[in-house]
Amino acid sequence: MQDSHTKLIRLMKLAELLVSRAETLSIAESCTGGLIGSMLTDVPGASAWFLGGVISYSDDVKINVLGVDPLIIEEKGAVSEETAVQMARGIMRLTGSDIGAAVTGIAGPLGGVPGKPVGTVCMALASEMSDESITMHFTGPRMVVRMASADYLLDMLLVRLGGRL
Amino acid sequence: MQDSHTKLIRLMKLAELLVSRAETLSIAESCTGGLIGSMLTDVPGASAWFLGGVISYSDDVKINVLGVDPLIIEEKGAVSEETAVQMARGIMRLTGSDIGAAVTGIAGPLGGVPGKPVGTVCMALASEMSDESITMHFTGPRMVVRMASADYLLDMLLVRLGGRL
Repeated sequence: MQDSHTKLIRLMKLAELLVSRAETLSIAESCTGGLIGSMLTDVPGASAWFLGGVISYSDDVKINVLGVDPLIIEEKGAVSEETAVQMARGIMRLTGSDIGAAVTGIAGPLGGVPGKPVGTVCMALASEMSDESITMHFTGPRMVVRMASADYLLDMLLVRLGGRL
Repeated sequence: MQDSHTKLIRLMKLAELLVSRAETLSIAESCTGGLIGSMLTDVPGASAWFLGGVISYSDDVKINVLGVDPLIIEEKGAVSEETAVQMARGIMRLTGSDIGAAVTGIAGPLGGVPGKPVGTVCMALASEMSDESITMHFTGPRMVVRMASADYLLDMLLVRLGGRL
């Protein structure tokens, strides 16, 4: 995990890139429960580029608010790259942002299943141009998995925007 | 502000009360940007009582996702008890939770207006039975205003559920 100084620099870089590209961001969070939104809005003036998000903790919120296909959740699981991509597209559509970001995972200590142990986290970025997604396996207690997920997604965003880690 | 031990005890109490009352909670956050959702989902097993939330950072998200009346925003302001109540009702309706909680405020450093200085925060709780709302004026930098808002809303929730501070 990164120290707070490194985190702050990354957030400022992210804000700067979004402002210079005149792009807006929104976020759909499951296992991180608002942590990423909270980090983004720690930056003064975030309202210039951050439109908002959905904390889709229950599957019903993923389906009814973000428009995730219930069949995808049934077949691939709520923690899957397919679901993450649909969450990212859903929040982009819902808020009208240029970029949608999403995280869905198993923070633990319970909730692990065969093939998807605690620490499995799927992340996605969506835009009009293209989608990308990844599955990571983080190790550690609940808070570490959540923070590692937030850090990873913010790094994905920075790279997507043409920034450097 | 409370120390982390006090905060943890309050969160555990809140979880216990919601479980014992078989009630569910959802949250609409503006100035706190996901901070409260993040605190609630720090509690393992939060999915038993926390359905999710909306980070309604822009007015468009307040209106289009939470269903806040644009006239209310125009007449009373995005930071008003009327808007907070509509956000709380909106998130309750959207997620189907028993209780909806909402925060909208001016965290600063910019954004203050005559009569609503930086640190003005409106909070509301909604349920089928009744709504309640309050306006607070917190002093301090952005992070302090955000944390004080989160603390205050969690205390309101605890009292509403019949718990003790």
